[in-house]
Amino acid sequence: MSALSPEETAWAAADAMWATDYASKALGMEIIDVGPGSAILSMVVRDDMANGHGMAHGGFIFTLADSAFAYACNAYDLITVAAHCSITFIAPAKRGDKLVARAREISRVGRSGIYDVQISVGDAVIAEFRGGSRQIGGSFIEGKQINA
Amino acid sequence: MSALSPEETAWAAADAMWATDYASKALGMEIIDVGPGSAILSMVVRDDMANGHGMAHGGFIFTLADSAFAYACNAYDLITVAAHCSITFIAPAKRGDKLVARAREISRVGRSGIYDVQISVGDAVIAEFRGGSRQIGGSFIEGKQINA
Amino acid sequence: MSALSPEETAWAAADAMWATDYASKALGMEIIDVGPGSAILSMVVRDDMANGHGMAHGGFIFTLADSAFAYACNAYDLITVAAHCSITFIAPAKRGDKLVARAREISRVGRSGIYDVQISVGDAVIAEFRGGSRQIGGSFIEGKQINA
Amino acid sequence: MSALSPEETAWAAADAMWATDYASKALGMEIIDVGPGSAILSMVVRDDMANGHGMAHGGFIFTLADSAFAYACNAYDLITVAAHCSITFIAPAKRGDKLVARAREISRVGRSGIYDVQISVGDAVIAEFRGGSRQIGGSFIEGKQINA
Repeated sequence: MSALSPEETAWAAADAMWATDYASKALGMEIIDVGPGSAILSMVVRDDMANGHGMAHGGFIFTLADSAFAYACNAYDLITVAAHCSITFIAPAKRGDKLVARAREISRVGRSGIYDVQISVGDAVIAEFRGGSRQIGGSFIEGKQINA
Repeated sequence: MSALSPEETAWAAADAMWATDYASKALGMEIIDVGPGSAILSMVVRDDMANGHGMAHGGFIFTLADSAFAYACNAYDLITVAAHCSITFIAPAKRGDKLVARAREISRVGRSGIYDVQISVGDAVIAEFRGGSRQIGGSFIEGKQINA
Repeated sequence: MSALSPEETAWAAADAMWATDYASKALGMEIIDVGPGSAILSMVVRDDMANGHGMAHGGFIFTLADSAFAYACNAYDLITVAAHCSITFIAPAKRGDKLVARAREISRVGRSGIYDVQISVGDAVIAEFRGGSRQIGGSFIEGKQINA
Repeated sequence: MSALSPEETAWAAADAMWATDYASKALGMEIIDVGPGSAILSMVVRDDMANGHGMAHGGFIFTLADSAFAYACNAYDLITVAAHCSITFIAPAKRGDKLVARAREISRVGRSGIYDVQISVGDAVIAEFRGGSRQIGGSFIEGKQINA
């Protein structure tokens, strides 16, 4: 095949992942942008993601961040998994809020990477996430081509 | 009211939280046990929690652990929120697996606490979670009585 | 007193802290720069900071990062302490290497803050540190003036 | 050689590590106990580990915990390094306090492990540390024999 640019590779890997990412789809996530080592995803806090006070369960904020992390660290089309993640909750999000998670690469050395994800609602930062990734080998795009 | 034992207080707080914990209910979680500073919750990995390989999205494993953490750190009926959480993924969980999260208190000094949650499928450990909590004041049980 | 600029406040707080920061001095650290929410410190890996392979003990890399974090989060002259820190080790540092730790503010809401510190040797990143801070009240500069 | 018991292996690995662990020695650490996946180390807070208020710099508390973690995760005589560490500071330690760090294994699967270290002064818990390790291959004991 003709060589893909880094941006094209990031989108091709994202498309291949998204096809079977039933979890992120079921939560109503949308991919706003992807690039080499970066990704922006959004999700609206639904009623079934909230507690009785109408505030988002922290697990769903984490899940959006974790998805953004996954699209960012797999954007080189080298299959990579999350090894360790941490999140600090800064402010609550409420039902109906549109969460935006912006993932960016902090470090990538050998098979290990570090990615930071900021989760915000409008201008307000809701949480800060940091993920450590480990490349395990394999390709999304090639796998897809083989199946085509 | 007549004094509740620590175990009764833990269950009363859990019942009050559960009533409006739409997020944990929607994910099919069940509270297996609660006690002072501890909680055990379970959840089956559904199709819409999995990726195309049939493996659970890490966000749902985190969410189960985060709920177990919440029931454990609120078991004294002093309203407490998650401030910082970290998770290490050890082995994948697949569609249909029954995840069990066991939360226990590591430290509680002043208004801050540390809770560890082990997530397993049968005898296999899937992930280890550690949460830092902060007590913000207020009571689930008293709040409920006022509304009664 | 005449109002200090944010940069002057950062330096005045740093000077007051440094006066009694026997630990950082004993390790040979130097303050290269401070500003509002930021700090750059350096330290050379001495023989007594290394193991038998001539590699720096991770604890000293952490300690340099922790000091940079402290100078960054106290730069507003509001006394602030470390609550939770994490570090990922990316590459080893060897005896004689000059470590540089650059701390920058990621978030500051209410009394809680998040600061990231990158530790490098020349162009090579050695470790990434993230610290969560909590403001406990009090002032370095005012305290110093009272004593003057 | 004759087979060593797990306890003998842990001590043999610890002895081999200690011989060149100039950093831990220079800080006045002592190994109280080691076993398979566990270690107990102590260290007294010296004047040059404290700030002007006579409180221990958090970096030295971390360093003691990190050493205990290292002796615990290398106790199988399979050379293992720290990949990611986090620490929560619970209470301050002051000059002259004897810190005791107790490391225990939480998980060991494949080449990755998780170890928790509790740092205390007498009955008071000062900090909780969690470390993630990665086995990189090689042996302390065999290496020593080859050199003998």
